[in-house]
Amino acid sequence: MQYSIREATSEDCKDIARMIMELASYEKMSDQVKITQEVLETDGFSNHPFFKCLIAEVPEEHKSKEGHSKVGYALYFYTYSTWKGRAVYMEDLYVMPEYRGKGLGCALMRRVAQEGKVAGCSQLNFALLDWNTGSRDFYVSQGCWDITDSLGYHFMRCEGSAFELLAQGQPQA
Amino acid sequence: MQYSIREATSEDCKDIARMIMELASYEKMSDQVKITQEVLETDGFSNHPFFKCLIAEVPEEHKSKEGHSKVGYALYFYTYSTWKGRAVYMEDLYVMPEYRGKGLGCALMRRVAQEGKVAGCSQLNFALLDWNTGSRDFYVSQGCWDITDSLGYHFMRCEGSAFELLAQGQPQA
Repeated sequence: MQYSIREATSEDCKDIARMIMELASYEKMSDQVKITQEVLETDGFSNHPFFKCLIAEVPEEHKSKEGHSKVGYALYFYTYSTWKGRAVYMEDLYVMPEYRGKGLGCALMRRVAQEGKVAGCSQLNFALLDWNTGSRDFYVSQGCWDITDSLGYHFMRCEGSAFELLAQGQPQA
Repeated sequence: MQYSIREATSEDCKDIARMIMELASYEKMSDQVKITQEVLETDGFSNHPFFKCLIAEVPEEHKSKEGHSKVGYALYFYTYSTWKGRAVYMEDLYVMPEYRGKGLGCALMRRVAQEGKVAGCSQLNFALLDWNTGSRDFYVSQGCWDITDSLGYHFMRCEGSAFELLAQGQPQA
């Protein structure tokens, strides 16, 4: 199937927001999504963007049952390792179910790695839910490894009232 | 003990590089550190910085046995959650052993949260090694929780020859 991978513009934010919600539903977490098209426009396409995004697009004749021609995305940003230096972090990689198995996911991921390499990065990082074994097999086939299993790295988070208290410099209740 | 927390400048990179190595040694990973003072100067203090850094400094009369007055640091950058929006990621939080238990680590972490809040972030994220129970207790006391244990998020990485092949768009061996 014909498709193209290109950089997202602010005009893509409606479709990015739609696909973020589709991905969250797949991950059984759609109630967690607070992001909107408008927030994406501000955060990704102003003078100081917080992320970059790639879009997988198919020609008009291959559009989805619901009429979508933007059928996948990869959202990423640059991070930093104090051991290895510049790194690229892939926050989301998503392809709509009816377009899977045709190379779009792989093409999106490769383009993220390419963009990272151009920016001087030496590694690509991302997170994966432990029950998502289908995606894990794909990533492992691309040479990725699980540093939580092999090295013991755990993700920690502070948000909500705990984050507010921390930022205010007040002791926790 | 008197101390101050301030933004790092490129003049601090020698001390940041020293403390990165001290932290990696504590984590039993010092052979992994490829970063140098010069790389930190370029990556953190040019027109497009890849990270931000805070320094904990003590007055001359409290300097360490080896003569250091820069005795702790927090290195961080902004990331993005497609569910919650802007986030701040704390890559490293370190205080030299002889200055621990005096509030410097907590002050550094609070300042990272404050900077994040000013930038519009709603969460602070970081990674922790599973055997580092002392640090875990400190973070949990600050209201942080382990999203690897509770939600099943694993860190995945692609680097070295796998990253090169991915960026070149070639199939893995």
